[in-house]
Amino acid sequence: MLRNIKVTIEYDGTNYHGFQRQTDDLSTVQQALEETLTTLTEHPVTVIGAGRTDAGVHARGQVINFTTECRIPVDRLIPAMNSLLPNDIVAKGTEEVDLSFHAQFLAKSKGYRYHIYNARIPSAFDRLYSYHVPQKLDVARMKEAAAFIIGEHDFSAFRAAGSNAKTSVRRVYSLEIDHRPPNIYLTVEANGFLYNMVRIITGTILYVGKGKLTPKDIRRFLDTGKREETGPTVPPQGLCLMEVRY
Amino acid sequence: MLRNIKVTIEYDGTNYHGFQRQTDDLSTVQQALEETLTTLTEHPVTVIGAGRTDAGVHARGQVINFTTECRIPVDRLIPAMNSLLPNDIVAKGTEEVDLSFHAQFLAKSKGYRYHIYNARIPSAFDRLYSYHVPQKLDVARMKEAAAFIIGEHDFSAFRAAGSNAKTSVRRVYSLEIDHRPPNIYLTVEANGFLYNMVRIITGTILYVGKGKLTPKDIRRFLDTGKREETGPTVPPQGLCLMEVRY
Repeated sequence: MLRNIKVTIEYDGTNYHGFQRQTDDLSTVQQALEETLTTLTEHPVTVIGAGRTDAGVHARGQVINFTTECRIPVDRLIPAMNSLLPNDIVAKGTEEVDLSFHAQFLAKSKGYRYHIYNARIPSAFDRLYSYHVPQKLDVARMKEAAAFIIGEHDFSAFRAAGSNAKTSVRRVYSLEIDHRPPNIYLTVEANGFLYNMVRIITGTILYVGKGKLTPKDIRRFLDTGKREETGPTVPPQGLCLMEVRY
Repeated sequence: MLRNIKVTIEYDGTNYHGFQRQTDDLSTVQQALEETLTTLTEHPVTVIGAGRTDAGVHARGQVINFTTECRIPVDRLIPAMNSLLPNDIVAKGTEEVDLSFHAQFLAKSKGYRYHIYNARIPSAFDRLYSYHVPQKLDVARMKEAAAFIIGEHDFSAFRAAGSNAKTSVRRVYSLEIDHRPPNIYLTVEANGFLYNMVRIITGTILYVGKGKLTPKDIRRFLDTGKREETGPTVPPQGLCLMEVRY
């Protein structure tokens, strides 16, 4: 009997060329998961992931699903997976779901967190999990800027040039900036994200923090939709997929 | 004019064969520092480190010193060092000290922290900075055990077999166990440490937490001095040199 299994996954993306399997032989999270599950179930497994995180991006709450006829009990699956997976990928939770469940298409919202390490001197420990910004930042202004992002907008100005989603309208449910010196965490939840959208939002809000833009510029960018006006795409290692809701 | 420079260093020890320069060409923290300082000062530099951390052990407060005739101001030294060092080694603070200062011989005390990650499922992020212990631990008993370590004792039972320090008597000023689930931090300060002493103390206290030993066994081990009775040497990646006092 065919079963559909949902698994929550955590991974350190440092050593992977992103989540999604590549045509060439680059190491990806999907590939590692598929190899592990193929070994466990003794048949070829295709893994569907909720979010296609880029190279160097991390996840604490990625969700995947796969179908199998293997009878392994769900509570045995986690220790079995973790004994086979490389130790920078961890299966955290699992449940059997309806055959109609699809980790990517049925996601109602996703939450990402971007970690800025804001100190004059960099950190040897956070270097792979944050973006080091040595300049002083005006966090109050960054919070003002963040408020303009919340809601349903056309995010054309906040997606990578050349990305081709059918619509560039997304609804951002929340965008919080949590200042715990020397760390600044930008946490955003939306019904979906365009390519590089979190990293461009963060780069633009950082420009506000540095005084290169004003909070009200954000509103203008949402209206004009010009990518060349918004801030830079900040580096991948500060980004982490925190949660997927269904 | 010869100057003596003291620098506080942080490093992620994951990719190094310990602090101390090796006779073969293995990558060490000392070697990286000496290469950087030799480039900066334009003469060969020998670095003296307070603690000779093992392969995989980290530091947030290692102290080094070196002598130079180079006139670079101390406040310019940190950005100059950090621009040349690999980004898993960071210079955090610097000062010019008396020529008699010696980072290793004059250390009055050192503080280490050992990080235990105590959860059923491991962490993809803490794997290089902690020791994963999935079993339930009796932390109250571990604290009882820790109390016996404090004070001046012969730590023969808590040093690696074959180590040859002149005396095995050390004074432990404090040993605290801080339980912040799922983390347990064991923080110890002493006037000096025998080889592998922190890791054997931690392994022995963990045996108490698992019920394999009782807190009072610790007192017996201090009396009998037999290494074969104490717990295992826990792995290096949980250990971090936090502070050196002079």
